[in-house]
Amino acid sequence: MKLKFGMVGGAGGGISPMHMRGATIDFMAELAAGCFSRKAEKNAKQAELWGVTDTSRVYPDYKTMAEQESLRQGDDRLDFVVIVTPNDTHYEIAKLFLQKGFPLVCDKPLALTVEEAEELEQLAEENGLLFAVTYTYSGYAMIRQAREMIEHGDIGEITYINAEYPQEWLSLALVQENSANAMWRLDPKQAGKSQATADIGTHIEYLVKAATGLSPKRVLAKFDHIPPTLAMESNTTILCEYPNNVTGLLWASQIAIGQECDLRLRVFGTKGAIEWQHQDANRLKVTKLGGPVQYYSADSPYNYPESVRLSRTNPGHPEGLFEAFGNIYRSFMENLIARREGREPESFTYPTVADGVDGVRFIDACVKSNENGSVWVDV
Amino acid sequence: MKLKFGMVGGAGGGISPMHMRGATIDFMAELAAGCFSRKAEKNAKQAELWGVTDTSRVYPDYKTMAEQESLRQGDDRLDFVVIVTPNDTHYEIAKLFLQKGFPLVCDKPLALTVEEAEELEQLAEENGLLFAVTYTYSGYAMIRQAREMIEHGDIGEITYINAEYPQEWLSLALVQENSANAMWRLDPKQAGKSQATADIGTHIEYLVKAATGLSPKRVLAKFDHIPPTLAMESNTTILCEYPNNVTGLLWASQIAIGQECDLRLRVFGTKGAIEWQHQDANRLKVTKLGGPVQYYSADSPYNYPESVRLSRTNPGHPEGLFEAFGNIYRSFMENLIARREGREPESFTYPTVADGVDGVRFIDACVKSNENGSVWVDV
Amino acid sequence: MKLKFGMVGGAGGGISPMHMRGATIDFMAELAAGCFSRKAEKNAKQAELWGVTDTSRVYPDYKTMAEQESLRQGDDRLDFVVIVTPNDTHYEIAKLFLQKGFPLVCDKPLALTVEEAEELEQLAEENGLLFAVTYTYSGYAMIRQAREMIEHGDIGEITYINAEYPQEWLSLALVQENSANAMWRLDPKQAGKSQATADIGTHIEYLVKAATGLSPKRVLAKFDHIPPTLAMESNTTILCEYPNNVTGLLWASQIAIGQECDLRLRVFGTKGAIEWQHQDANRLKVTKLGGPVQYYSADSPYNYPESVRLSRTNPGHPEGLFEAFGNIYRSFMENLIARREGREPESFTYPTVADGVDGVRFIDACVKSNENGSVWVDV
Amino acid sequence: MKLKFGMVGGAGGGISPMHMRGATIDFMAELAAGCFSRKAEKNAKQAELWGVTDTSRVYPDYKTMAEQESLRQGDDRLDFVVIVTPNDTHYEIAKLFLQKGFPLVCDKPLALTVEEAEELEQLAEENGLLFAVTYTYSGYAMIRQAREMIEHGDIGEITYINAEYPQEWLSLALVQENSANAMWRLDPKQAGKSQATADIGTHIEYLVKAATGLSPKRVLAKFDHIPPTLAMESNTTILCEYPNNVTGLLWASQIAIGQECDLRLRVFGTKGAIEWQHQDANRLKVTKLGGPVQYYSADSPYNYPESVRLSRTNPGHPEGLFEAFGNIYRSFMENLIARREGREPESFTYPTVADGVDGVRFIDACVKSNENGSVWVDV
Repeated sequence: MKLKFGMVGGAGGGISPMHMRGATIDFMAELAAGCFSRKAEKNAKQAELWGVTDTSRVYPDYKTMAEQESLRQGDDRLDFVVIVTPNDTHYEIAKLFLQKGFPLVCDKPLALTVEEAEELEQLAEENGLLFAVTYTYSGYAMIRQAREMIEHGDIGEITYINAEYPQEWLSLALVQENSANAMWRLDPKQAGKSQATADIGTHIEYLVKAATGLSPKRVLAKFDHIPPTLAMESNTTILCEYPNNVTGLLWASQIAIGQECDLRLRVFGTKGAIEWQHQDANRLKVTKLGGPVQYYSADSPYNYPESVRLSRTNPGHPEGLFEAFGNIYRSFMENLIARREGREPESFTYPTVADGVDGVRFIDACVKSNENGSVWVDV
Repeated sequence: MKLKFGMVGGAGGGISPMHMRGATIDFMAELAAGCFSRKAEKNAKQAELWGVTDTSRVYPDYKTMAEQESLRQGDDRLDFVVIVTPNDTHYEIAKLFLQKGFPLVCDKPLALTVEEAEELEQLAEENGLLFAVTYTYSGYAMIRQAREMIEHGDIGEITYINAEYPQEWLSLALVQENSANAMWRLDPKQAGKSQATADIGTHIEYLVKAATGLSPKRVLAKFDHIPPTLAMESNTTILCEYPNNVTGLLWASQIAIGQECDLRLRVFGTKGAIEWQHQDANRLKVTKLGGPVQYYSADSPYNYPESVRLSRTNPGHPEGLFEAFGNIYRSFMENLIARREGREPESFTYPTVADGVDGVRFIDACVKSNENGSVWVDV
Repeated sequence: MKLKFGMVGGAGGGISPMHMRGATIDFMAELAAGCFSRKAEKNAKQAELWGVTDTSRVYPDYKTMAEQESLRQGDDRLDFVVIVTPNDTHYEIAKLFLQKGFPLVCDKPLALTVEEAEELEQLAEENGLLFAVTYTYSGYAMIRQAREMIEHGDIGEITYINAEYPQEWLSLALVQENSANAMWRLDPKQAGKSQATADIGTHIEYLVKAATGLSPKRVLAKFDHIPPTLAMESNTTILCEYPNNVTGLLWASQIAIGQECDLRLRVFGTKGAIEWQHQDANRLKVTKLGGPVQYYSADSPYNYPESVRLSRTNPGHPEGLFEAFGNIYRSFMENLIARREGREPESFTYPTVADGVDGVRFIDACVKSNENGSVWVDV
Repeated sequence: MKLKFGMVGGAGGGISPMHMRGATIDFMAELAAGCFSRKAEKNAKQAELWGVTDTSRVYPDYKTMAEQESLRQGDDRLDFVVIVTPNDTHYEIAKLFLQKGFPLVCDKPLALTVEEAEELEQLAEENGLLFAVTYTYSGYAMIRQAREMIEHGDIGEITYINAEYPQEWLSLALVQENSANAMWRLDPKQAGKSQATADIGTHIEYLVKAATGLSPKRVLAKFDHIPPTLAMESNTTILCEYPNNVTGLLWASQIAIGQECDLRLRVFGTKGAIEWQHQDANRLKVTKLGGPVQYYSADSPYNYPESVRLSRTNPGHPEGLFEAFGNIYRSFMENLIARREGREPESFTYPTVADGVDGVRFIDACVKSNENGSVWVDV
């Protein structure tokens, strides 16, 4: 039987259809309840679009939803709740649903302050609840392949990390003034103390972690306000010190004309190196010291099984962003089911609330480093 | 309210999950009935996996399904039926459902003989029923962009067409002897008189048509049996004569080691040229005479709206095969709805039963050309 | 001591500076005599530019040059003569210098008719003279790597060959009417019975031979006159039958907008495949059956020594067209020196007069095939 | 008449054949004198190989050469002298030849200390002598195209610069222990206080300057010793502050497995961006805000004439490293000739002694920044 999930937020478009597609792509779950908008009409319309046929489970606000849904038990109870509201509301909503005992999937960033994020992590732990934070890009099959290769020592000891996430949308938005979306992200009151670092720098930070297992011990950041009139940084350059004296270089930009969502990760080791680019998401560049460059293709039998199981088509048939979302949901749900069945989950991994907390800490340290003239700050 | 559809076949894996994802990716339709397998247990299991909760609509055979479902009317009636059974059964199943008045979506090839295919086309026409044939790759947004550019004269008059679909899977299958799937395709009794041409050559033929509007008037084909022990060809090279003396060159192979599903289309004109590669599906190479090479990115505002509307994410976020399937389903369903509402459909296009007939004729002509030593044969 | 060479033609620009650079790039030879133009002033100027300081060796016509130079002996005698005149004069000039006993380097095509070409081959053989025909692209180090891999069986038995040489220059020239150069090539009186096939189709034909050792036994060609007003074909599609029933597909075009000099060669085998593209000339795509795609980089130690010796820089430092020319000259000269020293030459290969004859035969067969409606014609 | 040049150093291989090819590729100059090695036999052999036929101009040491050659006048006098000796000898040799009144071409780095470098700059100025420092990569035609585009405002105001030069050779050398060459570079006594920064970081620094005209005002550097046993850094990450608050990010590495000489430059502006990669040296990625990505191809008419004139072949025919060297030499010589003829030189640019001084200052500032824990240091 399929898992049942509820959703808070989602009528605003943007990321929420990706969550819907991700949650349902493998036929493992169905949407059973939600509060998609505080506007009744939008709420009802979204419920219909997404097939919530039981209108008693479409709620006017998230508190009512949490209250009412927590009364349901057994097969009738939601297996998990998805939070896709604006960043500044994640904390209060997640907190309530955790208190009511629901496993969660929450968009990143987890919260706006380290304190809030840590409180959520603690609540999840105390209540024994799984909690995924959707760092989307970590869901690609070839990121998992990278992780397996690194864990198996295929590239030796890591020596240097170079990761970047250049985008151009802000340059376009500024001339097109097209989007409430753009403006929302540029308002410090809603978005916090950082723009590019919080919005996409944190994606890089977690992508490195997903691929290598490493989190930075300290950071040195330089923020650029481009154009200078921006209230927050649109471009950020970050040096990281990872364990074992591994240096990392992270760059995120939203004014990098000619770069769309060109996330790129390079990890160098003593015996080899791997490189992944979002524009070529189904392949992984792999070089073993002294050998030619190779391109591993997703779903090919020479990949590790942990990666192969995340592919749904044959080699050469591209999977994209929705499927990456799907892999995070699938892994989260596999873990939910395994726990319920009292067995060890198979080796599916997903970004957890602890990763979400790390992300908020990372942003915080970068902000402090930049404020102090690009000095080293412990994370 | 969502459209309802039924499915014949699907428990065997392979292409059927792609149909499911394609049909549901835009939240426009839900699976309501089906006969997924003639084996009762597999049938029931598939129905549960795919959420057909009304077990009375899970049928032991397609004839019963057609009979029973044709009795339902109004909101209760299936809006369309999807056929994903082996190729040699398409004809009889499609025929019956057309006779019962159901719009259809059928996997390609439409049928094994030209006569059967034409009969289906005639039946659909007589009954006024929409009928899509899922030439998957035509669903990519940038193929639609190519078509719009060509129709708007952006590359002038077409001068030459070069298209190819090299794969390597058969070379692998032959050494791995892994797959009933491979063997099924290699048995002339089930698959017809042609292997590579029928299986993937026809994908190229239609991709050219989707992008340019052109169908070949005559063909000259050379089939290669590689290895020589194969009963059917695994590699096919085809010269085409298109209207206005445009020459086309098509190559399809299933023994092209190093090429996965590397469909590639190049259309040259008097004022420019376009190129699309499956490996980089979200971009279109565009060159205007005398200017630099350009890469148009899906969903970007400089694309034609007919292409932009087929994208679901932002530029730079890859969409893949399932989304291409989704575009065919979406266009088919937009047309279904428009017809029901008595209005002109918006400009959504999809491969029709007439295209399916052309595909069978094309295969037939290639077979004849090859049998006669690579001579020109009218299509 | 450096070898001494003479040159016939060269004041017209075009290909001749490439010959000069190719001949001298490895400091093995110096230009000592020449007849660069029949116009005295241009002749003298070119001699000065290229450093022929002994003006007594700058001749008003090639016959005088042949006569006078043939009187010199010992260290004073030219080691070889380079012919870079228009195609329709190759035969008479080459014939005379062969009769006078000079080894030759001649631009392709060797001659305009098979009979002339064969006569030159016979003359060279009778006189025991080395004779290189500069099929430029065969000089790239990675083409030699391809050949070695194929000869060592690294990709098994060859199963299919796909090669192409699309250019766009003619489309540009036709709108820009810029060039006597273009017009010269389009005049059948000077250029023969074929344009695209003779000019660049033959480059493909030899590139295949250089990489695989194979020559076609029969061909089937379709010529396209694009635009239709052209006297000769600007686009040519050729099916080849190579020994062992290997099919080859060759395409050459001079109206392929968006393609500059995009020579590309793919050779598929039973155990692997190789691919080379001019645009990425220093790398070779290599796939072993069941393994990931690899890119071999020129000069890397994993290449065969016969390829490595053709590189002059470190891996990653690009070499280009002049260096490819240089490799042909170097190999030719290594063979000259070895013969003089009475030893076996090291394994340097270059396109010979026999290859030049094959090229003319190939063009001839293609012309016949096309004239007869694209039928098979023995080469 | 050709220019005459002399050379100091060159018998050791390595970079010197590139200088020879660069100096002679356009038939503008000939080698007339030299001191190629202090070992008599090697010296004589090199002179013969490179065609210095007047053995009286082959010298046992550079001092004798400077002395003797300074006595020659008029057509007999060397037009310039090339210095390709080890880095720690550049200063003394350059100083002497400047004092004797010879224009110079010197390999980079110009000198080991800022003081020495500045002294050379001052000497050149006082004596009115042209002095080129061969930052090779700046010679590519598309770097000149980038510079012209930026100067013409084609990408607006520069906002951010990202440049890198990852290599893998040191990782290979350390396991292969193949090379005195490697070891020479790793010895601080000969190479100075920096390895990766001085060897290739400085190439990046100048490439940015060549393309944009910008030099950093201050730097913040982090050096990594990989493996930790190295005496000097093999990997360096540098933040730069350019004029107008433009941030730059430079990364150089010699342990980046999978990267050969993968110099890459990205310059972002308010209206567009350009990107150049060494692996694809004949193309420039250009994006105008709101438009698709474009690839400008060298020698195409849409490029600026200052770039076009640096190409020797047709678009699509690759030029490589030697030709880049050639462009530096050609520009230097065009300036020499113009000065001699008392006219303004055409717009040929080359890296000068002032650029060489900047390079040494840059290295110096990076060393200081790293020693102090990655703090900002003025250049």
